[in-house]
Amino acid sequence: MCGIVGYIGKAQAAPILLDGLAKLEYRGYDSAGISIFDSENIQTVKTKGKIKDLRELTHDGADLAGTVGIGHTRWATHGEPSDANSHPHVNASETIAVVHNGIIENYLELKKRLLAKGYIFQSETDTEVVTLLLDYYFDGDLLKTLSKVMSRIEGSYALGIINKDNPDEIIAVKKDSPLIVGLSEDGNYIASDIPAVLKHTRKIYILEDGEIVKLTRDNVTVYNQDLDVVEKEVTEIQWDVSAAEKGGYQHFMMKEIHEQPKAVRDTIFPRIKEDDVFIHELRMTDEQIKDLKKVFIIACGSAYHAGVTGKYVIEELSRIPVEVDLASEFRYRNPILEDNTLAIIISQSGETADTLAAMREAKRHGVRTLAIVNVVGSSIAREADDVLYTWAGPEIAVATTKGYTSQLSALYLLALHFGKIREKISRSDYLEMIQELKSLPDKIEKMLQDKEKIQYLANQYIGLKDVFFLGRGIDYASALEASLKLKEISYVHSEAYAAGELKHGTISLIEDGTLVVALVTQEQLYGKIVSNIVEVKTRGAFVLAVTNEDNKDIEKNTDYVFYIPKTNKNFTGLMATIPMQLFAYYVAVAKGCDVDQPRNLAKSVTVE
Amino acid sequence: MCGIVGYIGKAQAAPILLDGLAKLEYRGYDSAGISIFDSENIQTVKTKGKIKDLRELTHDGADLAGTVGIGHTRWATHGEPSDANSHPHVNASETIAVVHNGIIENYLELKKRLLAKGYIFQSETDTEVVTLLLDYYFDGDLLKTLSKVMSRIEGSYALGIINKDNPDEIIAVKKDSPLIVGLSEDGNYIASDIPAVLKHTRKIYILEDGEIVKLTRDNVTVYNQDLDVVEKEVTEIQWDVSAAEKGGYQHFMMKEIHEQPKAVRDTIFPRIKEDDVFIHELRMTDEQIKDLKKVFIIACGSAYHAGVTGKYVIEELSRIPVEVDLASEFRYRNPILEDNTLAIIISQSGETADTLAAMREAKRHGVRTLAIVNVVGSSIAREADDVLYTWAGPEIAVATTKGYTSQLSALYLLALHFGKIREKISRSDYLEMIQELKSLPDKIEKMLQDKEKIQYLANQYIGLKDVFFLGRGIDYASALEASLKLKEISYVHSEAYAAGELKHGTISLIEDGTLVVALVTQEQLYGKIVSNIVEVKTRGAFVLAVTNEDNKDIEKNTDYVFYIPKTNKNFTGLMATIPMQLFAYYVAVAKGCDVDQPRNLAKSVTVE
Repeated sequence: MCGIVGYIGKAQAAPILLDGLAKLEYRGYDSAGISIFDSENIQTVKTKGKIKDLRELTHDGADLAGTVGIGHTRWATHGEPSDANSHPHVNASETIAVVHNGIIENYLELKKRLLAKGYIFQSETDTEVVTLLLDYYFDGDLLKTLSKVMSRIEGSYALGIINKDNPDEIIAVKKDSPLIVGLSEDGNYIASDIPAVLKHTRKIYILEDGEIVKLTRDNVTVYNQDLDVVEKEVTEIQWDVSAAEKGGYQHFMMKEIHEQPKAVRDTIFPRIKEDDVFIHELRMTDEQIKDLKKVFIIACGSAYHAGVTGKYVIEELSRIPVEVDLASEFRYRNPILEDNTLAIIISQSGETADTLAAMREAKRHGVRTLAIVNVVGSSIAREADDVLYTWAGPEIAVATTKGYTSQLSALYLLALHFGKIREKISRSDYLEMIQELKSLPDKIEKMLQDKEKIQYLANQYIGLKDVFFLGRGIDYASALEASLKLKEISYVHSEAYAAGELKHGTISLIEDGTLVVALVTQEQLYGKIVSNIVEVKTRGAFVLAVTNEDNKDIEKNTDYVFYIPKTNKNFTGLMATIPMQLFAYYVAVAKGCDVDQPRNLAKSVTVE
Repeated sequence: MCGIVGYIGKAQAAPILLDGLAKLEYRGYDSAGISIFDSENIQTVKTKGKIKDLRELTHDGADLAGTVGIGHTRWATHGEPSDANSHPHVNASETIAVVHNGIIENYLELKKRLLAKGYIFQSETDTEVVTLLLDYYFDGDLLKTLSKVMSRIEGSYALGIINKDNPDEIIAVKKDSPLIVGLSEDGNYIASDIPAVLKHTRKIYILEDGEIVKLTRDNVTVYNQDLDVVEKEVTEIQWDVSAAEKGGYQHFMMKEIHEQPKAVRDTIFPRIKEDDVFIHELRMTDEQIKDLKKVFIIACGSAYHAGVTGKYVIEELSRIPVEVDLASEFRYRNPILEDNTLAIIISQSGETADTLAAMREAKRHGVRTLAIVNVVGSSIAREADDVLYTWAGPEIAVATTKGYTSQLSALYLLALHFGKIREKISRSDYLEMIQELKSLPDKIEKMLQDKEKIQYLANQYIGLKDVFFLGRGIDYASALEASLKLKEISYVHSEAYAAGELKHGTISLIEDGTLVVALVTQEQLYGKIVSNIVEVKTRGAFVLAVTNEDNKDIEKNTDYVFYIPKTNKNFTGLMATIPMQLFAYYVAVAKGCDVDQPRNLAKSVTVE
């Protein structure tokens, strides 16, 4: 996920582009750049860092004259954040500049061909092949050249292009990545999302896949790939900027909850090839995986909860003993690290201070490290022996949602991969689980459509003081995450319990009306947890059960049930989490809390 | 710990003895018995089970005529609870009956000598040697015979004796175990504790060590071991029965908190011989200990928290990887159990259902089991491969105190023992730790003398709603137990955190006046936890620190400090726990909660 903008008009372009990029920073913020045609040449300034770094570098754009330009804010996928990998990407003669959002899937193959023709690459990005293909096929007409290039590239892209030989136009195109056009008297705009242009206009073209657009100072023409003109309808935007940057949602958290089908799909699907888990970035040999004697999973906060789930799944599928440890504990405890140990390090930001320090401690002992990280080129990603990226895109809300579920997705892939290589899974179970993995995004989608059921319940719990989440096995791990979610954004004192522990003390806190949330996805433990539900019901608790859709008879013993789609028992953590995110969200909203920026908390904890 | 009673007077003895035993049931309740002289013979009825079983068996005593007799309620130490091991112990000719509270330390040696003389033993108890020695030395005068036997036996004892040839007297003696005499018009009494006689009289002799007493129907004479008469002063008891059975404390919990120096001493001292840990009951060979690849600690509730501490200490001292697991999770999780694994099973009662089931699961996989249990002959003790008993005596309050600290003591012994055999501890460290272990009871005593400081603080927290306990390393384990203690008896929603995790969510719950208790005993982590304290102070928390006595400068950053005696870093869990028990107790009392029988909870969880 990245953000692109473009402007052509009467005003100075650079300040407008910088302004627009700032509004797209939620789409990425690891590097940024702009290219401006200054009536003689294309001037490009780009840097690793945030938009404010680019502002400083260009003196708020004042350094760059010119009224046509494009800009980019990046969220690294191919190639870590660096000046060279920043967009725009320019050809050697500096006649063509390109910004890109998306992934060119066949870029390695195209790169090989371009190298063979003598092209030299400046970056590790997939985007640069687009620039060089445009250079290679360029015949004077940028529009035609682009149409030709489109038939060579595969993947998803929104592209913005300027060209010294066609100085009074911007060409843009969209396929599977968002792109809109803003229309105004003072000039025309392209952007990945509406907020980037709202300051200037509320008249918008929303481009469809395959549509190409040519912007001049006073005109905008949309074409299909055959370059036939397409008639577009102008959309008049009614929202304000703040709602717009959240994709129409009230909060980033809700937006990100809804991005989970995509985040899970993007994390899982590229790693399944022909019914086989294929983790191309993993450099561990089969021998190394077979020799594993122990796995440590080290993390903080929600990532730690993903690790607790990971322990169950990895042990079950690969029969390697797993120890999950809090990074802040691991690093100071003089841990026993023997040969053939793998440390799996989980962090959304890749910068969590305790986690990074714990990883270094593990490495110091000669332990191999594998990071599950969302931010490309982050410290943890750079220093780990292997990285398995989650492709959740930037997460803005402090309370993680898509970050967490994509971590689970990565752990599922690893567990299956290890299990297969260690020959601990039957072929039929393996294939069934592969199918299940592929079905997870749709199942999340289905639950999101039922969100009003959770909202209805949450609205009755504005006065909520104490909540207990119960589960056994994997459901206990999900309970930990459900509890953290609620407490961090709604300030309700919630606590998670392995259900069997309740009788050893905490049941004394249950009184009339206390809310108890029971997670019941493990069929083999169904009877046991129902017994625990009855115990708390007897003491007056109000019980919400989250259970598989065919466990209808649980209604006899509970007050409210949210049904989740059935999946393989190893993957239920992902299913149970979605309604719990929604519950935490709706309680916080009902209480009037600042959902995206809860008090006292920071998005990524980069201090100890 | 057992309870003994005796009566000689005008009334029928049996109902009086049964009544007295019921008042001593807090001292033990695994078996009971009485012996009555019915004017011809000594009739003895005894059974495994509670006093009510003995009542049923004797029709509330109606079956047994006679106005002189002795009784006993047992808490097994030597020999599991069984009919044969129950007291009174009678010689073959049934002329002498003995009840005993205490331990005859040289009983094995005495038994050997008696066996050589042709005596046959009916039980596995230490007590039986007293009966048979009395038989062996008997010369017609029971008083003189007892004096002779006293010079043969070593250890602690309160004994009550009746003899067919001296039918109008009871002889009793006390050394290092409690014994009182009750004086009344209608007859005279002996008992382990005052509540057993308060129904009949408030006039009491409190016997001193070495004193022997002869009771007849209308006279009581006290002698020293030389059989000189000793003048005793009558004590007039002002308390009521309920206070009396709690040793003058308002609640069993407070009584048991004060019994901890003794419980810890009794658990540790017999296992230290000449500056060496010597666990005679442990049948693991040195080879087996050296070969250990992994230790599982499996438990529920507070015993689980003892296990969390145990992980730190065992890993640190013996470098064996330890995994602590909740019994209710372990038993259903398909755990990975490899060769050379030891499962340490911890349970006060030895009957905890989930723990027992988990132990059986471990055994089914061929894993060696070692139980740390307080109740001799309990299911877990019987089925484990090895048992390391905690000698805490019966625990009546539902919230465990001395049970927990004696479990810690047992784990410390094991860790040192394993560490020495595996050659992971230097000789000087080992000796230093042995000395430290021996000093723990006195250090607990010292803290108990400061208890009003905790009471003062607790009284300010009657309205307490939410409390957070923080710690790092071993202090985290102590925080878990501190939190459970508070919540189970005071119904305050408290929660324990590894201090480094606070920033990953829970800090959002901190607001003005929230109580945060920081446990700070690990010198190497001092700076880290002080940072966490500052973080919560900044957000308005009221901070109570529990720290080593020389960390005075912590006062700069906290609101209240309780200083604990310094000890070896591995043993601080025991120190930090005492003030936290007191805090939980005083908050509960101030709130008017039922401290000994908190709502919804049972002492030992014998159902799943």
